[in-house]
Amino acid sequence: MSRAGCFVVLEGPEGAGKSTLAQALLANARAAGIQVTAVREPGGTPAGEAARRILLDHAHPVGPEAELFLVLAARAELVRHVIRPALDGGHLVLADRFELSTLAYQVAGRGLPAETVATANRLATGGLVPDLTLVLDVASGTGRARQHAAGKITDRLDDEDPAFHARVAEAYLAAQARGVRHLNANRSPTEVAQEAWDAIRQVGGFA
Amino acid sequence: MSRAGCFVVLEGPEGAGKSTLAQALLANARAAGIQVTAVREPGGTPAGEAARRILLDHAHPVGPEAELFLVLAARAELVRHVIRPALDGGHLVLADRFELSTLAYQVAGRGLPAETVATANRLATGGLVPDLTLVLDVASGTGRARQHAAGKITDRLDDEDPAFHARVAEAYLAAQARGVRHLNANRSPTEVAQEAWDAIRQVGGFA
Repeated sequence: MSRAGCFVVLEGPEGAGKSTLAQALLANARAAGIQVTAVREPGGTPAGEAARRILLDHAHPVGPEAELFLVLAARAELVRHVIRPALDGGHLVLADRFELSTLAYQVAGRGLPAETVATANRLATGGLVPDLTLVLDVASGTGRARQHAAGKITDRLDDEDPAFHARVAEAYLAAQARGVRHLNANRSPTEVAQEAWDAIRQVGGFA
Repeated sequence: MSRAGCFVVLEGPEGAGKSTLAQALLANARAAGIQVTAVREPGGTPAGEAARRILLDHAHPVGPEAELFLVLAARAELVRHVIRPALDGGHLVLADRFELSTLAYQVAGRGLPAETVATANRLATGGLVPDLTLVLDVASGTGRARQHAAGKITDRLDDEDPAFHARVAEAYLAAQARGVRHLNANRSPTEVAQEAWDAIRQVGGFA
């Protein structure tokens, strides 16, 4: 890698198990003595958390364009103030969502133009690309069923119709790019975490 | 015009007299029995006002990219929920700032790439272009001196160095596009308002 650190992103539809996996990977990294920084989008900075509150406001749902721009504002601040400094300090950075979420939710889900969104995203990230993006593949409907079973409080995305969630899921399943790796997440959290950790160790050059 | 209503934007550097002019034009329109909607950027919707608070937060200044995206999020909501409906209803819409502010502050001032910003802005506006943009031209330094004389509370833009404000002022002076008209704002507010109102009546086809 041309820079210090290792940037790993966890992606997938709602309820695919990203948060559970992030916790397991964080524990693995700490046990291995690896300096690690965990972030989630949108959020992680004062402006990012404020943008998150706007995005999750049931009473005043924003349109697709504002949704995109708020996500990108949060991402720009997160890259600038947290991710870049952590990578420069040699950290393993574990991010819950990054660019692929924007392609899944705002492009496939909301129907915004792919090229414009990609251009705007590059401005937000300053061209930062993950070393590894792990996409959690789950059978259609599994993720949301898991969330309901867990009693998760619904947010605005949960209010969307099934067709929206189907487009998002399809975009994730179809995602192919350099550094993108799919994991079968219809398995136990332990199995998923083991495969994810093996992939991270390989990409990051960790023992 | 291909749609109902008339969309007029007031532009210029800090202290050029946009707010004073907006009030005069609003009074003129009401006196003439014209249905009028006045807006200012960023703001005018719940998400837009929340974005404004983030942008004006001295304690946590955002980077140039997040600044752009927050401005565009606010603009997208304002167009969708206020400006478009008002124009569809046949209103004269008076906007304190719109796209030209982004070119002056985020491109000329902050140095963000012009083409990317223009592309993102088109997504925010849905292609809506003002019928008339009135740029208030003031002698260098006049605007900020006026603000200090008026005891205006400083915001984040006031904390920027003189070179930043010089680039913004230069961008405004150089602005040339269809529908952009410059007004000499080194005159009395009454003279400026008279010329502005004449221009609006002509463009809007008001008696």
